[in-house]
Amino acid sequence: MHERLPGFRDFYPEDCAKRNFLFRVWSDAARCHGFHEYDIPTLEPLNLFTEKSGPEIVSQLFNFTDKGGREVALRPELTPSLARMVGAKVASLPKPLKWFNIAENFRYEKPQEGRLRSHYQLNCDIFGEPGPGADAELIATAIASIRSFGPTEKDFVVRLSDRTLWMLFLASLGHEGEAALGVLGVIDKLERLPREQALERLTPYFGDAREDFFAQVETILSLRDAPSLATFFLGHAPNADLRAKIEGRLAEWTTLLENLRAMGLGPFIRVDLGIVRGLAYYTGFVFEIFKLDADGTLSGRALAGGGRYDHLIGKLGFPETPAVGFGMGDVTMTQFLEERGCLPKMIEKPDVFVVLGGGEARTLGLAAVGALRSAGIRTEYPLREVGFGKQFRLAGQSGARLALIVGENEAARHQIRVKDLTSGGEVGIFASHAVEAIRAFLDEGIPPTDSPS
Amino acid sequence: MHERLPGFRDFYPEDCAKRNFLFRVWSDAARCHGFHEYDIPTLEPLNLFTEKSGPEIVSQLFNFTDKGGREVALRPELTPSLARMVGAKVASLPKPLKWFNIAENFRYEKPQEGRLRSHYQLNCDIFGEPGPGADAELIATAIASIRSFGPTEKDFVVRLSDRTLWMLFLASLGHEGEAALGVLGVIDKLERLPREQALERLTPYFGDAREDFFAQVETILSLRDAPSLATFFLGHAPNADLRAKIEGRLAEWTTLLENLRAMGLGPFIRVDLGIVRGLAYYTGFVFEIFKLDADGTLSGRALAGGGRYDHLIGKLGFPETPAVGFGMGDVTMTQFLEERGCLPKMIEKPDVFVVLGGGEARTLGLAAVGALRSAGIRTEYPLREVGFGKQFRLAGQSGARLALIVGENEAARHQIRVKDLTSGGEVGIFASHAVEAIRAFLDEGIPPTDSPS
Repeated sequence: MHERLPGFRDFYPEDCAKRNFLFRVWSDAARCHGFHEYDIPTLEPLNLFTEKSGPEIVSQLFNFTDKGGREVALRPELTPSLARMVGAKVASLPKPLKWFNIAENFRYEKPQEGRLRSHYQLNCDIFGEPGPGADAELIATAIASIRSFGPTEKDFVVRLSDRTLWMLFLASLGHEGEAALGVLGVIDKLERLPREQALERLTPYFGDAREDFFAQVETILSLRDAPSLATFFLGHAPNADLRAKIEGRLAEWTTLLENLRAMGLGPFIRVDLGIVRGLAYYTGFVFEIFKLDADGTLSGRALAGGGRYDHLIGKLGFPETPAVGFGMGDVTMTQFLEERGCLPKMIEKPDVFVVLGGGEARTLGLAAVGALRSAGIRTEYPLREVGFGKQFRLAGQSGARLALIVGENEAARHQIRVKDLTSGGEVGIFASHAVEAIRAFLDEGIPPTDSPS
Repeated sequence: MHERLPGFRDFYPEDCAKRNFLFRVWSDAARCHGFHEYDIPTLEPLNLFTEKSGPEIVSQLFNFTDKGGREVALRPELTPSLARMVGAKVASLPKPLKWFNIAENFRYEKPQEGRLRSHYQLNCDIFGEPGPGADAELIATAIASIRSFGPTEKDFVVRLSDRTLWMLFLASLGHEGEAALGVLGVIDKLERLPREQALERLTPYFGDAREDFFAQVETILSLRDAPSLATFFLGHAPNADLRAKIEGRLAEWTTLLENLRAMGLGPFIRVDLGIVRGLAYYTGFVFEIFKLDADGTLSGRALAGGGRYDHLIGKLGFPETPAVGFGMGDVTMTQFLEERGCLPKMIEKPDVFVVLGGGEARTLGLAAVGALRSAGIRTEYPLREVGFGKQFRLAGQSGARLALIVGENEAARHQIRVKDLTSGGEVGIFASHAVEAIRAFLDEGIPPTDSPS
């Protein structure tokens, strides 16, 4: 028997309808926030990904040599392809660009809970705006992409952090460039590392001062609002130059938080410098979204993550372009929404089921089928001649709102009998007016009748 | 500079909107006809395709060995994966199944006009119904998938043929099984073969009788209705057994054509036994859809093709299941629709552009932005503080229907000024009622005013 590959999914209609519902709500949220949809190729040159992420990425890719001798890979993410598209036209397009996409990404990794070899991801990115207004807009869109399904601030939280502030603080301790990124790499793992191991990894950077640094980090991770950030970081600025830079950055924090609060999103935001994002290319505000358990504790894998990456497009050989973006995956999101009762069971039903007699009645009935479908009404009928009893059972099973009955008696009078399968009400209509009548009955129903009219 | 692979496409927002419009109209047509959407993996085991199409197919595939040593391929088509899904559940699902999908397929072939290495295809299939009612339903869906964009019977035609009738006729000449399929293979190519070459290819089957056979084929290709089919094929039935079989088949032709005519689709159908479809697995009625030039002649590549394939699912190792299906590609369809002026230029515009003052005004305006978006209204605003003059220009360029103006004067009175960018009319509203008011203005517009209210 044929099996699909491990980590890939078949979508039977019910699963496909659920996935499409997810995509539709995501698209609507992105469009309401002024984002435009784009798309990129599924297959790309391999070096597009290695140039961004280094040769290590290859071990996680579905990559191969194509029949023309090209080294190619199934996309593991959209950003490099997006950089190509934006880079090629950034000079001519009005900015800011606000673009979104929902597409399949592929990673060759061990399939596990919440991680498959193929998954879909919503990506939203804003290009051309360096100020915190773009960060606020992006975070607002990420929140809407979850909130539109029903979850509230009791269900999830945006952990908002800032690599710029971290880099300024590390600079004040004498660490810049690669060393600073190395320290951030340790902080990124703190939640999963025992204290002793964390201290060990900090030794190359801080030597005997590692315990002091660790204590400062613990304080930083406990800061929960802008005034606390100001008190701590201004209190640790060793000179006027760094102090001015920190003050400038704190002003951007204020703008970001004020924008989010003004849009009514304050309750979804938690200042939390524990988030630094693993990838080296992030340059400013970064965030991850986590679900909250009933007692308010963070739970599970991140539902979404993103941040500012102002240098990536330039690094890939295109004009330097300020950028912020986030990604949100379908697997973790579906689990979360189902857990919170926010993904309804999606079953697509016809509007109308047409019950057909033979001969002239079938001809008249099929004419109605054609007319109803041309008018956009979802219409089903039996593909072969079967008895009325069976047809009524099929009509009921189909979940249709209305049954249209075209028997010999009706056909002789060019009539159609319409039955409301919810109320049981029935009326007769002229076949020539079927579309208008059915539209009205679908809107308003047919009142119950004691005996068929 | 990074380039995409040959035969693949980037979709900038305007192209993506056009593609999405195509997909949306296709989906609506399929759903109106009672089809349910499903989806399959992009990557599948290689043998799924070679078992259906033979090892020759490999030369046209993007295939490779994955990191787990599996032979895999990007799907060149959906049917084998679909057979797996249907085969696995056909016993438990209510029949007929009517399923559709719109997905990307991949072929490693020389990119040329109308044929790329990646293209999207609408696939509709019906399983579990062996009678011609299913063929009629499928063809009706294919017609609607084009007609819904605007083209009429003057623009395209369904060339309807029948491999069963061909096989019965060839049986009457002593050719069955592989030999009959060989002859069909020659007939499939007749439109592109010079007469001499066609005769040469027929020699192995008919020897000196090839000219006679060729003359009969020419007659068959000129038959244009069911009575002509009956006259010819019954007139060439050499014995009672074949005559009975041909009579049975002609009755199915009558049912098929009556179903289509009853649904109002007669003008789209051309009986045309020149279509036999290249693939060996088709078993009954087959069809291809072609565009018509202004003078009614067939033109270009087929827009769609399909037919009955009752044995394929069984051949792939699943329970024998009657099946009909068609495919319709996005590249040829887009060209056709653009040629006929049926693909509008799609530009997505915001409903509302919010013009913001600074300070309190920005806070009040952003609150309106948040509220409008939560209500599903597409809302844009400048991501940074810029002057009113520039904001009004941006509002105009955005194509928004309404501008909301929140300056200091308005903010002090908790008001918002709303301007209809089409009529020029303006009114003031209370910020607390913005959503209801904006909904009404989007529906009804604001009458022009001589001076701002």
